[in-house]
Amino acid sequence: MKLTTFSDYTLRVLMYLAVERERLATIPEIANAYGISQNHLMKVVHHLARTGVIESLRGKGGGIRLRHAPSEIRLGQVVSASEGNSAIVECLSDEPCGCKIRPACRLAPILVRAFESLYQTLDEYSLADLVDKPDQSNQLRLLLKQA
Amino acid sequence: MKLTTFSDYTLRVLMYLAVERERLATIPEIANAYGISQNHLMKVVHHLARTGVIESLRGKGGGIRLRHAPSEIRLGQVVSASEGNSAIVECLSDEPCGCKIRPACRLAPILVRAFESLYQTLDEYSLADLVDKPDQSNQLRLLLKQA
Repeated sequence: MKLTTFSDYTLRVLMYLAVERERLATIPEIANAYGISQNHLMKVVHHLARTGVIESLRGKGGGIRLRHAPSEIRLGQVVSASEGNSAIVECLSDEPCGCKIRPACRLAPILVRAFESLYQTLDEYSLADLVDKPDQSNQLRLLLKQA
Repeated sequence: MKLTTFSDYTLRVLMYLAVERERLATIPEIANAYGISQNHLMKVVHHLARTGVIESLRGKGGGIRLRHAPSEIRLGQVVSASEGNSAIVECLSDEPCGCKIRPACRLAPILVRAFESLYQTLDEYSLADLVDKPDQSNQLRLLLKQA
């Protein structure tokens, strides 16, 4: 059980934008800072813009930035949105499920409840909890500049 | 974020053994009932035997069975053991992590706490909750026999 790469990159983008929130950032600079693919990152940024977490300003001097203060961005909401429809188990996906016992299986609602607890716990934290400790914001900024 | 196939099969084996707990079951019959690979199942059964959840009797007429009553087998413990060291995110794995911000990243302990909530919720349920509703045990048995 692990976070999708999509969620992993989503959180990294948000941390970057929280650290650099005085200015607009660009996809190439974020990709370069983390050493990850621009292509992957574009999908992540598009998703974050579409769900209203960030805003994208086009044109020369354009870029992306957080739409809200880091303290208002809850991690459970972010991860729940980025995980999207990736089903916890085959029987909860939209695809046909090959499992024979599905009609009598009581596991699916229990797993759904368990994942709800996970997201509730994540929702106890905001993006600010990831970046706004004294000194840590500077340390993050420095690490991201060592590209 | 999804259960590993290993956990999925682990839960299926346990449900099978709980439904058929009056007798010894065999790996070929369980693989056949679910239409899944015997090879995969052998690893799952070996793991369940090693962690003391089931016992394996060798020789002619041998097979496997639950070591405890289904009500004593907690789902959080089972899934936590079957997920094992599969890291939630790269930075929590034993492998070297390429993420540059690791020294200043505060995400890992938050994710660990979130997954603990998930397992705690699963631990509110036992294997009995999956199979011991009136009529449901019979329905499961019938579905598993339609191989």
